[in-house]
Amino acid sequence: MASNTFGTIFRITTWGESHGKAIGVVIDGCPAGLEVNEALINHVLKKRAPGQTPYTSPRKESDQAEILSGTYEGKTTGTPISILIPNRDADSDAYEPLKHVLRPGHANFTYLEKYGIFDFRGGGRASARETACRVAAGAIAQEFLKSHNIKTLALLKQVGSIEASTPFPFDQTLGLIESSPIYCPDLAAGESMMKMIQQAAENGDSVGGIVEFWALNLPTGLGDPIYEKLDAKLANAMMSLPATKGFEIGSGFHAASMMGSEHNDAFIENEGRVETQSNHAGGVLAGISTGMPVIGRVAFKPPSTIRKAQKTLTRTGEQAAWQLPAGSRHDPCVAIRAVPVVEAMLNLVIADALLMDRCSQASYSPVL
Amino acid sequence: MASNTFGTIFRITTWGESHGKAIGVVIDGCPAGLEVNEALINHVLKKRAPGQTPYTSPRKESDQAEILSGTYEGKTTGTPISILIPNRDADSDAYEPLKHVLRPGHANFTYLEKYGIFDFRGGGRASARETACRVAAGAIAQEFLKSHNIKTLALLKQVGSIEASTPFPFDQTLGLIESSPIYCPDLAAGESMMKMIQQAAENGDSVGGIVEFWALNLPTGLGDPIYEKLDAKLANAMMSLPATKGFEIGSGFHAASMMGSEHNDAFIENEGRVETQSNHAGGVLAGISTGMPVIGRVAFKPPSTIRKAQKTLTRTGEQAAWQLPAGSRHDPCVAIRAVPVVEAMLNLVIADALLMDRCSQASYSPVL
Amino acid sequence: MASNTFGTIFRITTWGESHGKAIGVVIDGCPAGLEVNEALINHVLKKRAPGQTPYTSPRKESDQAEILSGTYEGKTTGTPISILIPNRDADSDAYEPLKHVLRPGHANFTYLEKYGIFDFRGGGRASARETACRVAAGAIAQEFLKSHNIKTLALLKQVGSIEASTPFPFDQTLGLIESSPIYCPDLAAGESMMKMIQQAAENGDSVGGIVEFWALNLPTGLGDPIYEKLDAKLANAMMSLPATKGFEIGSGFHAASMMGSEHNDAFIENEGRVETQSNHAGGVLAGISTGMPVIGRVAFKPPSTIRKAQKTLTRTGEQAAWQLPAGSRHDPCVAIRAVPVVEAMLNLVIADALLMDRCSQASYSPVL
Amino acid sequence: MASNTFGTIFRITTWGESHGKAIGVVIDGCPAGLEVNEALINHVLKKRAPGQTPYTSPRKESDQAEILSGTYEGKTTGTPISILIPNRDADSDAYEPLKHVLRPGHANFTYLEKYGIFDFRGGGRASARETACRVAAGAIAQEFLKSHNIKTLALLKQVGSIEASTPFPFDQTLGLIESSPIYCPDLAAGESMMKMIQQAAENGDSVGGIVEFWALNLPTGLGDPIYEKLDAKLANAMMSLPATKGFEIGSGFHAASMMGSEHNDAFIENEGRVETQSNHAGGVLAGISTGMPVIGRVAFKPPSTIRKAQKTLTRTGEQAAWQLPAGSRHDPCVAIRAVPVVEAMLNLVIADALLMDRCSQASYSPVL
Repeated sequence: MASNTFGTIFRITTWGESHGKAIGVVIDGCPAGLEVNEALINHVLKKRAPGQTPYTSPRKESDQAEILSGTYEGKTTGTPISILIPNRDADSDAYEPLKHVLRPGHANFTYLEKYGIFDFRGGGRASARETACRVAAGAIAQEFLKSHNIKTLALLKQVGSIEASTPFPFDQTLGLIESSPIYCPDLAAGESMMKMIQQAAENGDSVGGIVEFWALNLPTGLGDPIYEKLDAKLANAMMSLPATKGFEIGSGFHAASMMGSEHNDAFIENEGRVETQSNHAGGVLAGISTGMPVIGRVAFKPPSTIRKAQKTLTRTGEQAAWQLPAGSRHDPCVAIRAVPVVEAMLNLVIADALLMDRCSQASYSPVL
Repeated sequence: MASNTFGTIFRITTWGESHGKAIGVVIDGCPAGLEVNEALINHVLKKRAPGQTPYTSPRKESDQAEILSGTYEGKTTGTPISILIPNRDADSDAYEPLKHVLRPGHANFTYLEKYGIFDFRGGGRASARETACRVAAGAIAQEFLKSHNIKTLALLKQVGSIEASTPFPFDQTLGLIESSPIYCPDLAAGESMMKMIQQAAENGDSVGGIVEFWALNLPTGLGDPIYEKLDAKLANAMMSLPATKGFEIGSGFHAASMMGSEHNDAFIENEGRVETQSNHAGGVLAGISTGMPVIGRVAFKPPSTIRKAQKTLTRTGEQAAWQLPAGSRHDPCVAIRAVPVVEAMLNLVIADALLMDRCSQASYSPVL
Repeated sequence: MASNTFGTIFRITTWGESHGKAIGVVIDGCPAGLEVNEALINHVLKKRAPGQTPYTSPRKESDQAEILSGTYEGKTTGTPISILIPNRDADSDAYEPLKHVLRPGHANFTYLEKYGIFDFRGGGRASARETACRVAAGAIAQEFLKSHNIKTLALLKQVGSIEASTPFPFDQTLGLIESSPIYCPDLAAGESMMKMIQQAAENGDSVGGIVEFWALNLPTGLGDPIYEKLDAKLANAMMSLPATKGFEIGSGFHAASMMGSEHNDAFIENEGRVETQSNHAGGVLAGISTGMPVIGRVAFKPPSTIRKAQKTLTRTGEQAAWQLPAGSRHDPCVAIRAVPVVEAMLNLVIADALLMDRCSQASYSPVL
Repeated sequence: MASNTFGTIFRITTWGESHGKAIGVVIDGCPAGLEVNEALINHVLKKRAPGQTPYTSPRKESDQAEILSGTYEGKTTGTPISILIPNRDADSDAYEPLKHVLRPGHANFTYLEKYGIFDFRGGGRASARETACRVAAGAIAQEFLKSHNIKTLALLKQVGSIEASTPFPFDQTLGLIESSPIYCPDLAAGESMMKMIQQAAENGDSVGGIVEFWALNLPTGLGDPIYEKLDAKLANAMMSLPATKGFEIGSGFHAASMMGSEHNDAFIENEGRVETQSNHAGGVLAGISTGMPVIGRVAFKPPSTIRKAQKTLTRTGEQAAWQLPAGSRHDPCVAIRAVPVVEAMLNLVIADALLMDRCSQASYSPVL
């Protein structure tokens, strides 16, 4: 409802511009009694940081989050958790001559039209830098999920038309992701992807990609019909990320060319639990978790910031060219750094659904 | 935030079960002074009604909406508009023996797990019948859009792997849609789709599909960063529909295999307006409308209700089969009837964004 | 956020005008598994109905609520509960000549200024008739509270300057309220109040009053800091009622002339529970329930609708008089019929707080 | 909905504990194009700061707000405005021995019951220090109101049973307030109040008070029926402040002893505008502004923190005494420092209502 807030019970409010003093996030509704600290946030932030491999922007963002409120003696207290991440290594001068030039595929045109003013420095509020705040908050959400034995991951599924194969179970897949500089558990496909990305970077161009997310061990019953379906919330979360063009869950767009007899997942019993034989549903039926793995994918466009000169207009309508200033930095494939961000959004959505679900039945047992 | 409410300013709350006394919707936040009546609602409801062609369920729902509040002398007054649609032709008895059988691909398992109780009759609250309420509300939203000169449509883009070609401008496309019993403007492709659907129906099976939506003449500036992006709201809206598995906007999943130099839409001037040469963005940059057509697609799975017997469990874990009762009705391809529903959600999202956008700048000029 | 919705988890959306076809309420977020039926709603509605004593308006509203959705086999299912109350005995003709006359103390001026249109018939949406919907929803909320052993009541505390004495415990007080036609448990004071009201009615005038509410057996911990304090929510709820001018909790306005050493409630132990010796706090510390009785008061102005002619303007600015049409009905003291409405709002606020509180700690034990 | 967020369109989220590193507020929904800076925030913060007179706590809070985001070249951009106020002069050690003692009239009992954990240092999140964030945000809201020619103030109306007379027009009253160390425009009454406060302080005791607020030049039409009434929002806002026990608007509790013929405000014409002869309504009819001054009052209890020893229990139920540590500081009358806070909440509520009102009619004229 507010454009900078996400979530209903476990909710985050992010703030800050790319080249301002700092960015930050306020987490409201995180339950009390959860052990959290800055180290676990910074560990995840590092996965999102650029400048670590040749496949991402060389901008150095050695982000160090500071928790300013909401914890006492290492535990959350139920009060809002304010996290601040100072901005560093921000050089706005190079962009100054492009201040009035509409940047193709970028935010300055639409922000100017909407607000009549735009902090163009480094993309301002529209910069993907905002996603660092999501990652910080997602790290807290993940601690909450862990206390419920829920496991989540994200991985690079596709770059250009190179698709990764992901046949392994959760823990093995996680290990493979962590050993890949681009978070792709299919090491062979990953090699081809890296070549493609480097080639694009050398050409001053960029390339698109797809990120896949997994969530295991969800209890049944998460997600609220009709307009708070778990998959609708995930779609909302993922499509709120910069550069996204599509979302799918389970069988996804492929479902369009399937028959019902093929798509329906048969219910079976496994060690006393109800499971389904296949999982075309992607772990969600009628918007509510089935207990099977929640699996989906998010499509990212090739980053709009490229080194090639592009035809455009100035704000006042004159013909112009937009070209990345010499020495400026860009990501040739945003989908790589989107991996930890997609995981963060997954964590946030599930944490919220877990809390919401506590309200669904007349009786419940308080702990204290 | 509430599971049965959608929208921020222009917001709907729907209620009702498939085989209850009635279903309905309360529209709150519809601006005052808009001319509305029951005829315009019933006109659109008819597009969603089954039983009109061989390609949809023969259940007769000659829905007649009644406006119970919120208008005076034919105009909205700013107070909530309550619309009631009585349920008719609902026969619950046939389903009685299946009451305790988990229905593959359906809601009863997850609702039972979440709430411990489920009104199984005709799918209860999880029935697609709820979407009639969305269509009714969408008809009111569309009147609001028309008063701003905004045009919207939806069409059947794909059934199985048969894809429709949609090269024509808005008005011509709209005419073609209206002349097709399955809302497909590509009449040749439509013929093949109809054959495929009939074949599936005859086999007691079902088939998936894709619906596409268009919105033209949007002002620039609709949609609020960061978490109220226009495309994120659309994704949320569409993925809240029953049977959806995917959403994409503009280039969509295809963006993953594109290069930035190819994907970026160049800004050009056209009759004094800023436009873009291509529209891979789908009318949205950084979550805010560019003024170019907003175009996206929604994937629908093949309906889970088929005539073929399916392996499953009872609620208490015994092996069982789920089979549609003799004489019962089902939709072989839900994507057809989803067309007016997708259009309704599109109208609701844009109406809400139009109202939200009034708050974005410090100054504005009231009308009265 | 929406003007016709109240509550966060247990939330109601009301609709309908005084002289329209019907009024109604949709309850969303009521937990599943609660036994409810129309009889319990109609029982409470009767307490609010006018026409039963000489102290309220003779308009006959033998309201019969109909539950249209949300229950199955006598229990709530977690889906929205839609309740409809048909309007009867509504005669709009008498008001027709006053259509364009600004009614002193009433809503037509402000609604016209805000919306440019007003359904003037019987007060339209601004009529206190809307509160019947709150009472219907409050009856459901009360069932939820009863399942948690929470007891609530409201009583007529003051009319004019006649104040009731309320020294008795809950059950005795409840009995006395039910034996009084004006819900005043101090029968002697009640006699004087009734005389005063009758006198006002005979003079074509009206009189103000104060309603007090009590809630017992609340668990500690209800209410969320900082902006969802239990007392702030109660203030919001009560001040959203028609004709209210003030709200206080515990010591209320009298606190202004107390000393801290006098006001502070000492903590004591009583049968193993922490209690306070006095209860100036009114059961709430820092916005969170202490477990002591929640007690507060709501001030109602004398109804603006009186039989005496009143100086005013027409909508176009000409001098005019507003006088109740001959034969028309009005309430000489709105505080009487406000008693069950205040109780309803109390129930709604506590039900919501109970559900919200389930989310405050990291661990909890689900029931199913 | 979230306990640390207030407002619908113009909304604030506050965070921080009394003795943490900092406190802060994120303002979301402030329209773009408004001139704001740190000086105007710090100017108002100073009015709330203690340590300036003998009538407030000697804790030195020379608060310096820092704007971390949301402005560009001195103007708001429509993105969230993050304001940080570092904590200084916070000594937690003195309170250490009282860590497990229930503090009468204070938050530690209820927070512990709710969350199982409490940052007791200086009152933690429950400290009135949180209100500095409201004041900072209110200063921004006031700039927005000024751009609409709306004037607001708050004043100390009553201390103990000493009541101030406030017969003067706005500007004169404002001048008198600014010349009073306790914000009381009745200088004679103010003298008596100061004596009373000093006496209470010397006795180690505290005293209650009442704050009055005024808002002038509101357009007609602000406030949304039914649950977003302007007075209900004000009640919610004011009762969310620490130490409040009551709220009233216009005639307030006095309305209970008035007759309708006396209370109704006659509509008159004044220089082409519709006004009312009296203003018992307090500028609001049916929850919507009439254009007349919005006037109300807020009751504050005597601060619970006093120097006198108080009987209580430890957290584990043993008898104990709570006594302010030697050298610790407290406010003998919280109503004084509440004056700028009440004004801040008034500004926030009206700013929000101004923005919400833009959505009430079908047509409007954008500025850009």
